[in-house]
Amino acid sequence: MARKASLSGFPELLPQERVVENHVLDVLRHTFELHGFSSVETRSVETIDQLLQKGEIDKEVYAVSRLQEDPDTKKAEKLALHFDLTVPFARYVVENAGYLNFPFMRYQIQKSWRGERPQEGRAREFTQADIDVVGEESLPFRYDVELALIVVDALTRLPIPEFKLRVNNRKLSEGFYRGIGLSDTAGVLRSIDKLDKIGPDAVGQLLKDELGATDEQVRAALNLASITAEDTSFAEKVRAFGVEDELLDQGLAELTEVIEEASKRAPGKVIADLSIARGLDYYTGTVYETVLVGHEQLGSICSGGRYESLASTGKKTYPGVGLSIGVTRLVSRILSQDLARPTRKVPSAVLVALTNDEAWSAAQDVAEHLRSRGIACEVSANAAKFGKQIKYADRRGIPFVWFLGTDDAGNTTHEVKDIRSGEQVAVDPSTWNPPEKDLHPRVVAGED
Amino acid sequence: MARKASLSGFPELLPQERVVENHVLDVLRHTFELHGFSSVETRSVETIDQLLQKGEIDKEVYAVSRLQEDPDTKKAEKLALHFDLTVPFARYVVENAGYLNFPFMRYQIQKSWRGERPQEGRAREFTQADIDVVGEESLPFRYDVELALIVVDALTRLPIPEFKLRVNNRKLSEGFYRGIGLSDTAGVLRSIDKLDKIGPDAVGQLLKDELGATDEQVRAALNLASITAEDTSFAEKVRAFGVEDELLDQGLAELTEVIEEASKRAPGKVIADLSIARGLDYYTGTVYETVLVGHEQLGSICSGGRYESLASTGKKTYPGVGLSIGVTRLVSRILSQDLARPTRKVPSAVLVALTNDEAWSAAQDVAEHLRSRGIACEVSANAAKFGKQIKYADRRGIPFVWFLGTDDAGNTTHEVKDIRSGEQVAVDPSTWNPPEKDLHPRVVAGED
Repeated sequence: MARKASLSGFPELLPQERVVENHVLDVLRHTFELHGFSSVETRSVETIDQLLQKGEIDKEVYAVSRLQEDPDTKKAEKLALHFDLTVPFARYVVENAGYLNFPFMRYQIQKSWRGERPQEGRAREFTQADIDVVGEESLPFRYDVELALIVVDALTRLPIPEFKLRVNNRKLSEGFYRGIGLSDTAGVLRSIDKLDKIGPDAVGQLLKDELGATDEQVRAALNLASITAEDTSFAEKVRAFGVEDELLDQGLAELTEVIEEASKRAPGKVIADLSIARGLDYYTGTVYETVLVGHEQLGSICSGGRYESLASTGKKTYPGVGLSIGVTRLVSRILSQDLARPTRKVPSAVLVALTNDEAWSAAQDVAEHLRSRGIACEVSANAAKFGKQIKYADRRGIPFVWFLGTDDAGNTTHEVKDIRSGEQVAVDPSTWNPPEKDLHPRVVAGED
Repeated sequence: MARKASLSGFPELLPQERVVENHVLDVLRHTFELHGFSSVETRSVETIDQLLQKGEIDKEVYAVSRLQEDPDTKKAEKLALHFDLTVPFARYVVENAGYLNFPFMRYQIQKSWRGERPQEGRAREFTQADIDVVGEESLPFRYDVELALIVVDALTRLPIPEFKLRVNNRKLSEGFYRGIGLSDTAGVLRSIDKLDKIGPDAVGQLLKDELGATDEQVRAALNLASITAEDTSFAEKVRAFGVEDELLDQGLAELTEVIEEASKRAPGKVIADLSIARGLDYYTGTVYETVLVGHEQLGSICSGGRYESLASTGKKTYPGVGLSIGVTRLVSRILSQDLARPTRKVPSAVLVALTNDEAWSAAQDVAEHLRSRGIACEVSANAAKFGKQIKYADRRGIPFVWFLGTDDAGNTTHEVKDIRSGEQVAVDPSTWNPPEKDLHPRVVAGED
């Protein structure tokens, strides 16, 4: 990752870096499946019409067209690369509703593309890992709690620093704003969303200038946003404002349910943070963001929320709740800060050395034995001097070199050398196993 | 797959179909790693200049541009989606040569895009699994044998019918043509490549019309192409023509080495087939194609060959040998012909039922126990009637439903029901395991 991408915003990893990325992807997939979620992929392209339904972000979209495209191609058929996995998933659910079982629990790990200015944590091609539950017409609130716990489980298994999943509830915020007389609740949310970037004074000024808020309203909105808690004590703090609103009550009850269960199952990892607004419009209840402690400037590594209508066919609506993990953002941070590294860069645990060129087939026999027990290995392509073959293994980090020989009675002998310790012992190809820790490349904590 | 894609040429799978695709991808990855190959991914886009270097296929290329792209974007910076993984890999090798160990053994499983007319076995967005070894300046011939054996190992592990990996050698064919006086050897190869499509008579006419071949030359070229053998007997048949050519001798020796070792290690699966030409220009020795027996009209599901110069920096050349497996082509055939199917469509082995709404947290405790032992499970979101919860599991193919209860002494009881047999037994959440066959969805042979 220290290398410069040859095309800005389109990073490519070296094999040893890819070991780390694959580890992250494997952990996410494994965790999502443990929680019962199915894998789905959608096509990389959508019609431009479909992508731009929500407006605003047309600048970021990559259009796709055949070099020799028929100039009569209808506008409705024009294609573009998807910029997230939510819009394609919504379309997939509507198109395939008749084939799916609801609530439909799926994860989706794929690339997306945005033509934004590249910077750390923001690439033009990037991998997201999304996990959502979608209901038909309705979806129990319990999933808002469960989804938070699933991503906590997943993130806890990754080689990353401590993290905080910060949770708020749109109903709580919007009900509160309404209760203090700020009727453009979406406008307030958009301003509050800028707190991290521009600070409370500037946000207060925005509220006054754009929404005509009074000093008192500004103070109340900012005070609400300053509330955080690892337990349900946030609710008393909100009630202390004395604001009366039905939506506020509903939001308080929902957020209390999330924090109550989460603080029990994942103490210190899920916190109520009433500054979380999420810019996007479609969230209607719970909203999530996640920061890596000590890496706050990286931005959120996992965000999402509840939407009352992810998709709708006119006849039916599909409410859902989900989160999206920024895999590329996480992996680039892990690599650039050496938070984790692989124990070796190749899969092979063993290099089977060649004594002479005729021994290649016998060496392949040994390799077959090892592979049948799940031990990754390769056979030297040349009968170079043993020192050279050992050096070949060493450069790749392959821990063991296997030597075939012949004893006085003409029988084939087998010895394996741990090239780290130099220890060499006689072994049987049908029973030898490397120590468990050397079987596969592992991802371990980097140096601090 | 029976469903029509909502965008022609861009197929999307249902969750149960995706189980089959993931199985195929997992098997390929596992096998490639067992043989010591590292995972690499390249970006999805290349510059158009880079992609069109080899000419010819511009019609198939999908250009990519930001919707709001600066009209001054230089032509050299225009982007397109890659149409295979070879061109991007060649660029990757040259760019990163200083960071790689040669011979560099990598596999790459990614999507590619081609704007061709969609038909079965040919999608506009498709997944390829490529495996290549690349040397710096030179690469031992042994890898031509090894790569054939690796893909045989991989394909043998897949839920597909019998297959034949057909091997030829460009040096053999070109030397032979030269030896019988046909100097435009590339032209002959291009015509011979059409044998499967247009038959020997039409190919003979092409050779006469386009290359001015005599009847005798046509007969010799077609006779050579008719030679197939499961062992090295093909060599005698070629020698019987009495053609003298140094390149021919070299090709014969190379193909003999591949078939000799392969017929020993994979009897009946690798055959010499002297009709294999491979249209693409960059192959310089061994060429491979693979057909599924009984599905020949699907085309080759795994092709490749040896190239003396995959990439070149002017200073250095990087010879290689590799093959590409058409994953989308294989998976769509598996699904459309019901060659294999998943034992269930969701990861969950267990549904933890809810006795009442207050039991949710206790049910999550059970789920945590199970997940800590790698058992995928989910918890009901609603305390519906047990019959309804069992129906929920049944629709998804979840084999076990877990019930919590309370005994007379007020202790929590646990029972698990196999909903296929109806058998229900008392169990301990900290020790119970499903039978191995029910732990994960498996992919099994479909009905014939």
